[in-house]
Amino acid sequence: MRRLLFLWLAALVLLGGAAQAATDEYGVATGQVERWGTYEIALDGPRDGNPFLDVDLAATFRQGLREIAVDGFYDGDGRYKIRFMPDTVGQWEYTTRSNRPALNAKTGRFTVVAPARGNHGPVAVHNTFHFAYADGTPFWQVGTTSYAWLHQSAQSQEQTLQTLAGAPFNKLRMAIFPNNDVPLPDQRFPFVGTPPHNWDFERFDPAFFRNLDRRVAQLRDKGIEADLILFHPYDKGKWGFDRMPGAVNDRYLRYVIARLAAYRNVWWSMANEFDLMKEKRMDEWDHYFKLVQAGDPYGHLRSIHHSVRLYNYTQPWVTHASLQQGAAVEDPERAVIYRDVYEKPVVFDEVKYEGNIDRRWGQLTAEEMVLRFWNGAIAGSYVGHSEIFKDTDSRSWLGKGGTLRGRSAPRIAFFRKILEQSPQEGLEPIDKWQEHPFAGRHAEYYLGYFNRARPTAWPFVLFKTGLQDGMRFRAEVIDTWNMTVTPVDGIFTIRKRDDYTFADQDGRAIALPGRPYMAVRIIRVR
Amino acid sequence: MRRLLFLWLAALVLLGGAAQAATDEYGVATGQVERWGTYEIALDGPRDGNPFLDVDLAATFRQGLREIAVDGFYDGDGRYKIRFMPDTVGQWEYTTRSNRPALNAKTGRFTVVAPARGNHGPVAVHNTFHFAYADGTPFWQVGTTSYAWLHQSAQSQEQTLQTLAGAPFNKLRMAIFPNNDVPLPDQRFPFVGTPPHNWDFERFDPAFFRNLDRRVAQLRDKGIEADLILFHPYDKGKWGFDRMPGAVNDRYLRYVIARLAAYRNVWWSMANEFDLMKEKRMDEWDHYFKLVQAGDPYGHLRSIHHSVRLYNYTQPWVTHASLQQGAAVEDPERAVIYRDVYEKPVVFDEVKYEGNIDRRWGQLTAEEMVLRFWNGAIAGSYVGHSEIFKDTDSRSWLGKGGTLRGRSAPRIAFFRKILEQSPQEGLEPIDKWQEHPFAGRHAEYYLGYFNRARPTAWPFVLFKTGLQDGMRFRAEVIDTWNMTVTPVDGIFTIRKRDDYTFADQDGRAIALPGRPYMAVRIIRVR
Repeated sequence: MRRLLFLWLAALVLLGGAAQAATDEYGVATGQVERWGTYEIALDGPRDGNPFLDVDLAATFRQGLREIAVDGFYDGDGRYKIRFMPDTVGQWEYTTRSNRPALNAKTGRFTVVAPARGNHGPVAVHNTFHFAYADGTPFWQVGTTSYAWLHQSAQSQEQTLQTLAGAPFNKLRMAIFPNNDVPLPDQRFPFVGTPPHNWDFERFDPAFFRNLDRRVAQLRDKGIEADLILFHPYDKGKWGFDRMPGAVNDRYLRYVIARLAAYRNVWWSMANEFDLMKEKRMDEWDHYFKLVQAGDPYGHLRSIHHSVRLYNYTQPWVTHASLQQGAAVEDPERAVIYRDVYEKPVVFDEVKYEGNIDRRWGQLTAEEMVLRFWNGAIAGSYVGHSEIFKDTDSRSWLGKGGTLRGRSAPRIAFFRKILEQSPQEGLEPIDKWQEHPFAGRHAEYYLGYFNRARPTAWPFVLFKTGLQDGMRFRAEVIDTWNMTVTPVDGIFTIRKRDDYTFADQDGRAIALPGRPYMAVRIIRVR
Repeated sequence: MRRLLFLWLAALVLLGGAAQAATDEYGVATGQVERWGTYEIALDGPRDGNPFLDVDLAATFRQGLREIAVDGFYDGDGRYKIRFMPDTVGQWEYTTRSNRPALNAKTGRFTVVAPARGNHGPVAVHNTFHFAYADGTPFWQVGTTSYAWLHQSAQSQEQTLQTLAGAPFNKLRMAIFPNNDVPLPDQRFPFVGTPPHNWDFERFDPAFFRNLDRRVAQLRDKGIEADLILFHPYDKGKWGFDRMPGAVNDRYLRYVIARLAAYRNVWWSMANEFDLMKEKRMDEWDHYFKLVQAGDPYGHLRSIHHSVRLYNYTQPWVTHASLQQGAAVEDPERAVIYRDVYEKPVVFDEVKYEGNIDRRWGQLTAEEMVLRFWNGAIAGSYVGHSEIFKDTDSRSWLGKGGTLRGRSAPRIAFFRKILEQSPQEGLEPIDKWQEHPFAGRHAEYYLGYFNRARPTAWPFVLFKTGLQDGMRFRAEVIDTWNMTVTPVDGIFTIRKRDDYTFADQDGRAIALPGRPYMAVRIIRVR
């Protein structure tokens, strides 16, 4: 029976491979589609009046007893679209609903096949403090930020994608609205109109959003999550996108969801530095969160990024904390506090930036940038990078994307490799609140990081949880800056030392080179 | 006009002083009463059946258009009482309500006079992160804990009170239920019955609660807030008070409120280490919080103390965070995170204890205990003390009260003096998240603490907020361990130094002795 099941599963996988769904230039499929791919229905409909306001369009997707309702959107030129991300293989069918006959009661069916290699589904919270893709593969968040790369020239956008292809980052924070202090050679905007102030807030510009779709799909195909920043304060009234009426904000959010929720790599960041948007009250943010939560059929990750004042991340509609704090990740005992408080994954999306500008948030050395990733990991949390170097056309990677000049990225790549070798459950602090800079999994795996200290030895002593006399471990010394992993000779056999710790039975220590940024990794041997 | 008002106020104060209300041995007044004193109505009523269950008793207190409803309680021997804490001077009147005629529709009136010296009213949240008495006097929380001092011999209880009279603490955390690991020579319990298991959970023991009343009043008269721990896990099934049915818990809370809410120095701590009480679910704690919030007419401070898992202190029924964290107050940049997150006062009620026991939570040196108070203050938060020394009958001050043996208390007294000289608004971090260990009030008052570092000088450099060229300051060097305050010669005149700081115009620094635990205080001169 088990053997039959296995054969059946194997056949299914083969079929999935063979039935590889084609995608168009926006990364969406219209024939059959892979699991967690984007299936699209395209319909011709009315061009009269204002289709963005006058036409309601939705579809219900069904498989067996499951029904999922999805909103459609107007894509300009009389074209309407409905996008859907199926989360199971097999036959699906749909029926459209509209207040216009041309779009109403259209039905269809399609086949969902197994995901192609590299498609692990959307990322969700895993094991309280961590992330995993829908197929169970851990997602070790190693982020970066480039606010307005989408608003640069096509050539610059391509360059950014090329840079990301060779960079260690698996999540990119990016804004939908432009930044007032970043040049905009592209001059495309989410609304129809003429900059700076002459906008028709009742008509989206499909050309802008088609480019957004395409870029999100390209990130997806590179294995990069797109953390879409839905609002931000960097407009400063230049175009007024930071102070649109509430009804416009609602419509904008629904349009973004209808277009983009069916891309598996989307995360929703309600805002960057929300507390600097003085036009909005706290309860408006709650409202936008709830709107996105209700409107997104797939439950993509939702958070909000702050400047000084924190949002209440304990709210049930927040999936993880997206924090700005440069000092917390200088010390795991600081960083872990946010985990304790929120009982959710903690992502330090902004920890100051590598760079050389005058502002103190943009002058980290590469060493200090990398150190923050390590401390974040030891606290069982996640960190984001960016860089900002003095530049003739301002803001470099942080603002515009393009190329990376900093020296942190290769070390972050090394860091990510170590991270991905950690236990699937995620790195958990081993003995928090005790000045013990180790994370891992009790009795199995320990990663210790010595931060700026320059120890010449680390006595082989482990915190007691899960340990027993006679357990055996091997060890490696990791130079996080010079990117080396050096195995330590021999096996360490432990014995209870006191009420709290076990130590190597021969009292051995591991020699360290007296340099900063060193780590050790201890792995159980059976 | 203003002069007349002044004379009228002066007369009122004189009257208040002259009309000093007498209090009985339980610290309550039955004739006239001072503002924020405890007025008591005593009535004779039925002794038949079970008065705790069968008799409903309440009173409505009225002054002008204000009405305050207060529950009464049965005090044994056919005596019923209703206690009330008036918050305004002048005439008040009351009417009782009961399901028993002997207690129903009793009316009376009484006069509330100005508070006596030392009576500042109940403590409430002030300026988001701080505390103040009802009359506006800041309350600088300097706490200690003695769980089961109430369960010791009368002689020991008197000794504890005597110790407190000479100690620096203005808040005492104390449990109503006994601790299984602390000897109980007194053998009085909140319920009628026979230990260990034969309790009548439908009958309180008034004798136990009369002693509690009296002790709370005695603390009040010493200027000490009684942080009453309503539940705790240290029963461990010995008597079963940690696992009573929900209905019993509710009745117990109502009884405690009826007896004690009218004492102005009461704080409600829903539990100690609530998360170790595995019998209770999180939503039960929410329920008890809401019950206490609804039942207490005066809105006394409400929090809950944890072991590892935090309660959600952002809940609206929580007035402040009552935390256990020894490491957070080793570093103000850790401690301040809790403030950021909760936007409420943060009290580190348990930061490990001064002592010499084997457990690592009870082996702080006095130096480390005192250091935690200072770091807490620099983070704009508050700290609690206790001590536990190896002892023939266990747990010493932490468990039983009695005398203090540690060396931290005198330094905490010195700390409290410095604290009380700080701006009334409370100490606020000057430049948090920037490794800048200063708190105070911009451009007025700066308190810097150098922790375990041993600096030999502090360059006179202040963070920019509120500063202007030419402002003048005087400085003092504070040795927090040796308890000295040494004025620094001369006046420091500041000039802008860079984008973030102002410095002494002559580039001067303040000499420091190269010892740990040093502080500086900088005060504006006009």
